[in-house]
Amino acid sequence: MSARTRFVSFTHVDRPGWGLETEDGIIDLSRRYGHRWPSLREVVEAHALAALAEECADHAPDFPVDEMAYDIPIPRPEKIICVGVNYPDRNEEYKDGQAAPGNPSLFVRFPRSFVGHGQALVRPPESDQLDYEGEIALVIGKTGRRISEAAALYHVAGLTLCNEGTIRDWVRHAKFNVTQGKNFDGTGSLGPWLIPYVDEAQIADIALETRVNGAVRQRDRTSRMIFSFRRIIAYVSTFTTLVPGDVIVTGTPTGAGARREPPVWLKPGDVVEVEADGLGVLRNDVRDEVA
Amino acid sequence: MSARTRFVSFTHVDRPGWGLETEDGIIDLSRRYGHRWPSLREVVEAHALAALAEECADHAPDFPVDEMAYDIPIPRPEKIICVGVNYPDRNEEYKDGQAAPGNPSLFVRFPRSFVGHGQALVRPPESDQLDYEGEIALVIGKTGRRISEAAALYHVAGLTLCNEGTIRDWVRHAKFNVTQGKNFDGTGSLGPWLIPYVDEAQIADIALETRVNGAVRQRDRTSRMIFSFRRIIAYVSTFTTLVPGDVIVTGTPTGAGARREPPVWLKPGDVVEVEADGLGVLRNDVRDEVA
Repeated sequence: MSARTRFVSFTHVDRPGWGLETEDGIIDLSRRYGHRWPSLREVVEAHALAALAEECADHAPDFPVDEMAYDIPIPRPEKIICVGVNYPDRNEEYKDGQAAPGNPSLFVRFPRSFVGHGQALVRPPESDQLDYEGEIALVIGKTGRRISEAAALYHVAGLTLCNEGTIRDWVRHAKFNVTQGKNFDGTGSLGPWLIPYVDEAQIADIALETRVNGAVRQRDRTSRMIFSFRRIIAYVSTFTTLVPGDVIVTGTPTGAGARREPPVWLKPGDVVEVEADGLGVLRNDVRDEVA
Repeated sequence: MSARTRFVSFTHVDRPGWGLETEDGIIDLSRRYGHRWPSLREVVEAHALAALAEECADHAPDFPVDEMAYDIPIPRPEKIICVGVNYPDRNEEYKDGQAAPGNPSLFVRFPRSFVGHGQALVRPPESDQLDYEGEIALVIGKTGRRISEAAALYHVAGLTLCNEGTIRDWVRHAKFNVTQGKNFDGTGSLGPWLIPYVDEAQIADIALETRVNGAVRQRDRTSRMIFSFRRIIAYVSTFTTLVPGDVIVTGTPTGAGARREPPVWLKPGDVVEVEADGLGVLRNDVRDEVA
């Protein structure tokens, strides 16, 4: 298995499935192995990514990419845990006299707050403050509690991208907790692929960039993260048992629309792209919710 | 079906199951219907509580209550959404010059942060600040988005109790968001039963009380809630689609251990009871986590 292997969850002719994406199309592995592993979550749980990738890489594709719709890579994870802003401020746009935080700010998103690659992000009628946040997401492959930083990356099965789309005014609807602003149905995205985690070079110092209609809005490198991938896994697993399929969204660089002067929100027709070295491009347009 | 019907999720001889609890023991319905409905979540989803209760109420029990262990009523809900403090302050213990909040503060707990009735709450080695919060929990029975307050209670399938146990110092580990202090494995409890929701009189003005070693620590009535059950369902469903099995934990009265002078934390051997009219008593003792 190489880091170029691309697992994908999809809907094809109204049927959810999973498989491998190649240059020539989709190898539908759910047709062959779906009885054993109904979704990529069960594949991850069985530690079967590597064997499947090796065994099936040369299969002929079953259908072209444009015949299917991308689903989020793990359709029903037990939990999706998100880290707040996690890259230092180049322009001091967050300056408020405070020292760097001692611990990451964490919140939870439900799977239904995300759409797959290529699907439209949904701007709800309640707000015009839909904002983007480009991030790298880890998919856990091995159960663990109180995982050490030294062992943390052994618990990672794969990588994907996240547009951690946010309804900015609803984030501050209550005194604490951002839950409601982070959980409008279909306001974020995950994908396009589940890239198997092979070694730390895949994530140690890669570029992460978010573009809106082609213009760069966020750009940073993972080597500058305030809380490293290892630290996040160690910290989160202090309180909760991480299990296969869990998704950890690891925080965004500065440059969200809320921080621009004046703020700039996403509007119908905009195209948002999140890209990171080796993880592809997660692309979504924006549409108004149909009442 | 009456409001006295008690559905229960349990583990019996190492096997998870569900059924009805009667004075004489447990009627194991999972043995009869488990192929169709693997857990109470699927029973709720099929709107089958009433028919099952009627059809099976007179069955002979399969085993005594003391042969099984209580699990949380819905073992794997899609989501558990919790409301922050939701009863007005009798003693102004929360006074800080602020007006009543306009919207509820919401956070998320994972199912593994809860144990069932009769199981020990787990005090982790990271903190001695384990605190109780007695609450009433709603189980959603019908899918809905942007549910009106008028229609809200039609979406409720059942009721249960929650000890929304909290690691108090970890709630303020980061600037916003209480995620980590609310999600240590096994620090809260849900149960003992899933009581079918029949009409509003079951919840409109009932007493809710929390006791520690028999001493009353929290006591209030649901008619005094800041955000009513109807309002909570309407508000939460503004941003996320509520689906059968979802659990909404509706907020605690004043009187948590953190607010006492000096603060009083739970310690091993303590017994916490949460009781509400018609919903039974949720009882858990406290033990230190075994390393």
